[in-house]
Amino acid sequence: MTVMTVRSEHDLLGHRDIPADAYWGVHSLRARENFPITGTPISTYPHLIEALAAVKEAAALANEELGLLEPRKAAAIVEACREIRDGKLHDQFVVDVIQGGAGTSTNMNANEVVANRALELLGHAKGAYEFLHPNEDVNLGQSTNDVYPTAVKIGTVFAVRELLQAMAVLQDAFSAKAVEFRDILKMGRTQLQDAVPMTLGQEFSAYAVMLDEDRSRLAEAVELIHEINLGATAIGTGLNAPAGYAEAARGHLSTITGLPLVTAANLVEATQDCGAFVQMSGVLKRIAVKLSKSCNDLRLLSSGPRAGLNEINLPPVQAGSSIMPGKVNPVIPEVVNQVAFEVIGNDVTITMAAEAGQLQLNAFEPIILHSLSESLTHLRAACLTLAERCVAGITANTDSLRAAVENSIGLVTALNPHIGYEAATAIAKEALATGRGVAELVLEKGLLPAERLAELLRPEVLAGSQGA
Amino acid sequence: MTVMTVRSEHDLLGHRDIPADAYWGVHSLRARENFPITGTPISTYPHLIEALAAVKEAAALANEELGLLEPRKAAAIVEACREIRDGKLHDQFVVDVIQGGAGTSTNMNANEVVANRALELLGHAKGAYEFLHPNEDVNLGQSTNDVYPTAVKIGTVFAVRELLQAMAVLQDAFSAKAVEFRDILKMGRTQLQDAVPMTLGQEFSAYAVMLDEDRSRLAEAVELIHEINLGATAIGTGLNAPAGYAEAARGHLSTITGLPLVTAANLVEATQDCGAFVQMSGVLKRIAVKLSKSCNDLRLLSSGPRAGLNEINLPPVQAGSSIMPGKVNPVIPEVVNQVAFEVIGNDVTITMAAEAGQLQLNAFEPIILHSLSESLTHLRAACLTLAERCVAGITANTDSLRAAVENSIGLVTALNPHIGYEAATAIAKEALATGRGVAELVLEKGLLPAERLAELLRPEVLAGSQGA
Amino acid sequence: MTVMTVRSEHDLLGHRDIPADAYWGVHSLRARENFPITGTPISTYPHLIEALAAVKEAAALANEELGLLEPRKAAAIVEACREIRDGKLHDQFVVDVIQGGAGTSTNMNANEVVANRALELLGHAKGAYEFLHPNEDVNLGQSTNDVYPTAVKIGTVFAVRELLQAMAVLQDAFSAKAVEFRDILKMGRTQLQDAVPMTLGQEFSAYAVMLDEDRSRLAEAVELIHEINLGATAIGTGLNAPAGYAEAARGHLSTITGLPLVTAANLVEATQDCGAFVQMSGVLKRIAVKLSKSCNDLRLLSSGPRAGLNEINLPPVQAGSSIMPGKVNPVIPEVVNQVAFEVIGNDVTITMAAEAGQLQLNAFEPIILHSLSESLTHLRAACLTLAERCVAGITANTDSLRAAVENSIGLVTALNPHIGYEAATAIAKEALATGRGVAELVLEKGLLPAERLAELLRPEVLAGSQGA
Amino acid sequence: MTVMTVRSEHDLLGHRDIPADAYWGVHSLRARENFPITGTPISTYPHLIEALAAVKEAAALANEELGLLEPRKAAAIVEACREIRDGKLHDQFVVDVIQGGAGTSTNMNANEVVANRALELLGHAKGAYEFLHPNEDVNLGQSTNDVYPTAVKIGTVFAVRELLQAMAVLQDAFSAKAVEFRDILKMGRTQLQDAVPMTLGQEFSAYAVMLDEDRSRLAEAVELIHEINLGATAIGTGLNAPAGYAEAARGHLSTITGLPLVTAANLVEATQDCGAFVQMSGVLKRIAVKLSKSCNDLRLLSSGPRAGLNEINLPPVQAGSSIMPGKVNPVIPEVVNQVAFEVIGNDVTITMAAEAGQLQLNAFEPIILHSLSESLTHLRAACLTLAERCVAGITANTDSLRAAVENSIGLVTALNPHIGYEAATAIAKEALATGRGVAELVLEKGLLPAERLAELLRPEVLAGSQGA
Repeated sequence: MTVMTVRSEHDLLGHRDIPADAYWGVHSLRARENFPITGTPISTYPHLIEALAAVKEAAALANEELGLLEPRKAAAIVEACREIRDGKLHDQFVVDVIQGGAGTSTNMNANEVVANRALELLGHAKGAYEFLHPNEDVNLGQSTNDVYPTAVKIGTVFAVRELLQAMAVLQDAFSAKAVEFRDILKMGRTQLQDAVPMTLGQEFSAYAVMLDEDRSRLAEAVELIHEINLGATAIGTGLNAPAGYAEAARGHLSTITGLPLVTAANLVEATQDCGAFVQMSGVLKRIAVKLSKSCNDLRLLSSGPRAGLNEINLPPVQAGSSIMPGKVNPVIPEVVNQVAFEVIGNDVTITMAAEAGQLQLNAFEPIILHSLSESLTHLRAACLTLAERCVAGITANTDSLRAAVENSIGLVTALNPHIGYEAATAIAKEALATGRGVAELVLEKGLLPAERLAELLRPEVLAGSQGA
Repeated sequence: MTVMTVRSEHDLLGHRDIPADAYWGVHSLRARENFPITGTPISTYPHLIEALAAVKEAAALANEELGLLEPRKAAAIVEACREIRDGKLHDQFVVDVIQGGAGTSTNMNANEVVANRALELLGHAKGAYEFLHPNEDVNLGQSTNDVYPTAVKIGTVFAVRELLQAMAVLQDAFSAKAVEFRDILKMGRTQLQDAVPMTLGQEFSAYAVMLDEDRSRLAEAVELIHEINLGATAIGTGLNAPAGYAEAARGHLSTITGLPLVTAANLVEATQDCGAFVQMSGVLKRIAVKLSKSCNDLRLLSSGPRAGLNEINLPPVQAGSSIMPGKVNPVIPEVVNQVAFEVIGNDVTITMAAEAGQLQLNAFEPIILHSLSESLTHLRAACLTLAERCVAGITANTDSLRAAVENSIGLVTALNPHIGYEAATAIAKEALATGRGVAELVLEKGLLPAERLAELLRPEVLAGSQGA
Repeated sequence: MTVMTVRSEHDLLGHRDIPADAYWGVHSLRARENFPITGTPISTYPHLIEALAAVKEAAALANEELGLLEPRKAAAIVEACREIRDGKLHDQFVVDVIQGGAGTSTNMNANEVVANRALELLGHAKGAYEFLHPNEDVNLGQSTNDVYPTAVKIGTVFAVRELLQAMAVLQDAFSAKAVEFRDILKMGRTQLQDAVPMTLGQEFSAYAVMLDEDRSRLAEAVELIHEINLGATAIGTGLNAPAGYAEAARGHLSTITGLPLVTAANLVEATQDCGAFVQMSGVLKRIAVKLSKSCNDLRLLSSGPRAGLNEINLPPVQAGSSIMPGKVNPVIPEVVNQVAFEVIGNDVTITMAAEAGQLQLNAFEPIILHSLSESLTHLRAACLTLAERCVAGITANTDSLRAAVENSIGLVTALNPHIGYEAATAIAKEALATGRGVAELVLEKGLLPAERLAELLRPEVLAGSQGA
Repeated sequence: MTVMTVRSEHDLLGHRDIPADAYWGVHSLRARENFPITGTPISTYPHLIEALAAVKEAAALANEELGLLEPRKAAAIVEACREIRDGKLHDQFVVDVIQGGAGTSTNMNANEVVANRALELLGHAKGAYEFLHPNEDVNLGQSTNDVYPTAVKIGTVFAVRELLQAMAVLQDAFSAKAVEFRDILKMGRTQLQDAVPMTLGQEFSAYAVMLDEDRSRLAEAVELIHEINLGATAIGTGLNAPAGYAEAARGHLSTITGLPLVTAANLVEATQDCGAFVQMSGVLKRIAVKLSKSCNDLRLLSSGPRAGLNEINLPPVQAGSSIMPGKVNPVIPEVVNQVAFEVIGNDVTITMAAEAGQLQLNAFEPIILHSLSESLTHLRAACLTLAERCVAGITANTDSLRAAVENSIGLVTALNPHIGYEAATAIAKEALATGRGVAELVLEKGLLPAERLAELLRPEVLAGSQGA
């Protein structure tokens, strides 16, 4: 028979037993019991945990400077926070990712873990809060309502940086193909109908440019996330945060994180506002929309192998069917499409949560954090797998692509300025009805001399130089 | 110089001039000034106007029966309502489709128009409310909070019926093509990759069956809309509605509309609940999703004419391009896709409006009505134009479809049970690499005797009889 | 130094080492490498794993009956499936919940685990597929395209049942409060403005009725999920599934699961159609909307304790603030709101995935399953925690509720039929401006005799009997 | 009997009669017949019509300069375009706002109107296209695929400017109230629970700051809309647009519109990309979310008049109820909420439309334009009506607001640093249970001397200076 060693802690509601080796305490215990929603603890977001530790560390340093916290306590708190930022104790962040309370449980969990680790460092037992208290010392001068949004923002900045890198990898993969395919002629299509010639390089170049623009937009959106409300305390009036605290804490936090953080000019507004998260999610949705469009194209261009467009070949990465031998499917673009759909759904979740804020606070930031983190990390994974397991290995069916151009009715568009829209329309109609070629019909009707026609229809001319 | 003849009316806020010939009054005037949002008046929804008149007529009859309304007044109200139900005076319903106030302005507008027309019928001037009052007589025993949801539901039922008819037209168009194409062999595709053979008839049959199922779901959802809360008055407690009123009014309303209406068992709940609208919108979204998918398919199957799948031909309905002569685009499916996107967006609007209800009422029913009406009428138009201007005229490229089957690697799937998944995989791989046919490779390797092979690969066998 | 013992397996792409003790094989390995998206394996959905095992078991029994599978092999497969259905080997279901390939990787993973366990039962080593093959035996007569949707549906039915039970628990909690509060008078509100009196019991009764209706809708929607496409194989034509197979497999599957399953009439349609999932998600969204609305109300009614409505008290379940001592927040309703926002976002994800289906298949069912599972399980947890940790402990502030009624201007509505809308409006205006009571003003102006007035304003009369 | 005078025109499909006085022609006629969806013509968007005319004018000037268009023709086209830009002939823009064909029908409609008006100016009959042709002259060097997105962008820029002005009006209204209310103390609330004191001015200041930030974001997003693809022609390769054309046309268009337009660096990408519209819609959604939140607050703060928070009074703008005399509802914030829900739904529509683009074009720009225009114009109307009919007239219930602060338990938070979180928690608990005041309990327990206590609890200190 096992005996669990426990310590007793109390809160507003009474006393509870806590496992003796737990760094979390009674507030975390309550939260675990109250929010048995997903079974996923907040430790699943390491960036958030590190950001929380950074905030606690910065606050302790500021409090020490202002003479509010004994240097011994401050040093212990700082040391505990650094361990957490080094990746330690993450398993002690146990509250559910979906939680009521505007992030209070996450902040309380952080306060408890930091306090108990600091107590150990000071030579005390865990739970001996008379020596160093989660709320009175670790949370000194703070409120969930400024700590939590600040930590969420810092964690988001870190996650965005990783996404930006992954997008760059994908962009490079598309760019490399754009160069590789720059001389391969093919029919361009509008509304899925044959239009006019272009190069396969131009087609892939567009995907690279899209990503480049999206990266710019994401980089802009993340700038807004650098504005924090630390020092606002409960509702932005800064109650209980002494003069100089906000600036001191921000300064230390910038140093610790290496980020150019700015304190919001109006802390009452900043404390209730989720606009920057809505904007960030909107940009992630934009990225998702275009990634999804690109993957739709890749799946369409590689359709076949015999009864499809069959213009390009995606590298096979697994058997495609449990019943159809030899079938290979575009599974990598498919998984990216699905991530895109998830990101778009998450944007609606974030929108609703942001709209539901009331008066001086938005109580629903935990689901905003959850959805945003999911979108960021899944998009990152999607970009990397798409780059490495799909785009990098794409090959082109050069000959059939060129044949399609030469056989196309769309060539007639190039003759438009020379024979007129109405005559060109008649040629196109006849070509379609008879299966004959545009060039032979133009010659037969004497609309243009053969040499001039050949010059006008030179595919290299037709494709122009745009986007090459 | 023109002189506008006016009459004076007053409300809570004071006196205002009303054009002498207007059937609407001071409450409608205030609403027009307060809600200059879309510029579209509620008369744009004739079903709603007719439903409002039906409710007012039923209430007057019930009030007369219960001895609360003089027969002379009741008769005039009833006559005015009948005129409106016959399509008259709709231009007097002038308040904006997007309005605050939970539908109060729409109800007030109806009360005023009915009262003023009834006054005329009784030989009085418009505005002579001492003889017959919009609120005290026309609205007797009623509240916006029971009148408006009831009218919205009745109007919705009428609009759903028209949509059901349009869906049946589209279903018939697909079914006719399913029969016409029942012997045309083609390659089926999964994940845009060649899979196994089927008939084009089976493909079109699926679209017809989808619509048939969707019609069943819509017919079920509209049942829920027959539950009304007339008699609930302000919050469902029935204050000011005498005993017997709810049942009498419901009875008359059923007779007038010909609908099997039911009074909700719990009127407090019914007055605040928008569940039936959310459900209805969810079913419309389901329909939109599948219509959009079907149109995506039609656009894909008709891609070309030379560099696409080119399996079917959509009838040309307009020139496709201002620059590319002879180009014909799938514009009808494209417009249906767009209606589908709109319906899906409207569903989010309706969801948010429903979620925003508070305590005893949902103040946001006007936007629910607006979005729902838009979805219903646009879907109806989309179904009809798709049936008549696209599906009915589709033709198939029979020979190339069959050739694709005979040339396909997917045939090897049929050999799976006879030569095994691993051998079949090897054949498929070799066919793909060499461009050779599955049958010749199987024979060459002696995996099956020629006769047996021919029997197994008979395309008619392969396509099965499902969905024909 | 550790040496991992491995076995070698091969697929279309070549040979790979598999850990010797793994029941999964090369196809699962490829999938893990291809889809490193969420880090969450499909084992997180036990209902799905059990459903997959049920399908494999039913197929084996059908194949045995039809003489296609040796009894010895069939028995081993059946035994392996039963173990999985008993909860064993779930940790061998390792592919990511978000995956490309239309569920192929999930099906392959199941085939491999069942095959390897069956091989063990037959006395062979794992990987000795020459004795019993994942594709040729376990997957015999099947395709991912019929196995996967069938398993997703069965798993969904199980999850819906659990949600229905949780909703019943919550409904009961609300109903109990409706009874407890049936004599407590309070002001009803429309548009957040004081309206007319009601009882707190009526208010809670509405929440119970909402849930009851939602349960009915959910029970209807889950009926549609009982229609399966097993026997459709790749695209619904039933290729490689012999005559009688579909019916035999369905029969066994019904017996195994205890569900009244039905084979779709048109398997081509059924194989590509996601309508039932869209509908199911739409109903979950409806539930979420109304749960969220109810929680908004609970938070509003319990606002305070001194500067809010303060009508009811939610049981405190944790300290509410890290800075504001004694503050208790409505954290349980808040977490339910957030789950609702997530469900609404998931509905958009599912909608997009369903719309993206092409031709004979929807390749995006994995994200549909993922989102649907999340919605179902989180809603279930939300209902239970709301019932048990919040609703059950709600108390009312009876005296102040009654005082608010007696002090209200809304009482004047009850006098409307007796003194007229215009006179009543004047009284209301004066009461508001002067702070005086409605009754005293009516008496002062001699509009009604005192006795009659007292009778009309008896709050018990005002609240009516609706929804009690 | 009326005889309609007609002229005959022809297209790809044959001849059709056109009303002799119509400036639109056969292509517009086909489109009207093909797209009977909403009944609303594109003339409902005057900014778009003017933008189309500006593009046609710029193209004609460029073509003339390059020697491709006779000066006489160019002058007539330019004159016709100027008339349209002056507001003439808008009623000739008759195609439906929801249309298939990627905007081709809109472009064709513009070509026809410009051509027929130019013909008149040249002394020819309408329809005498041998003298000046809609496609060969008016559309010279253009394609729908560059004209339409360019016009949509320019029209959007104009609409955004009007929205920015309306937002400034609303911001000013909030700012004026922030100043007016700067000394009014009130309880701040988090999670709807009493938190700590603040001023009503701080509360309103937050709304002003939110709008200010949103305006900045909108101004940034509209920058992206200045990048156009004129000169791209069909797919971005610039086929049929001579060297120098793109730059010349852009230059003229900038001059005509007064906008700093930029030609996209990669025209292939720019022609298919809808990212800027998605981003714009995302920012509009952000604005909607925060407007909706602000309106939720206004409705909550003005709840009552007796059984609500009753902190502020919204100006009455219409009678609130058809049954409850004297009731005044927050109808202006309510209509703004509904516009916000619509904008959020439109964002989903735009997202789906953008995601559905394929290969070299997005065929669904018409619904993007439609939804975006709706969002822009409705948000503008909502901001103005909110500013003028609501915010400007808000008054505060100063005395009761201050009393609530003095009576609050939240005051204890300010004592936290002086008596500790645990002691403060005990005081709060006792105050809540007994109904007694925080100050008296602190004194009774001797936790602080009276003078020090009075200083700490001075409300002006508590509210801080943030956001004032």
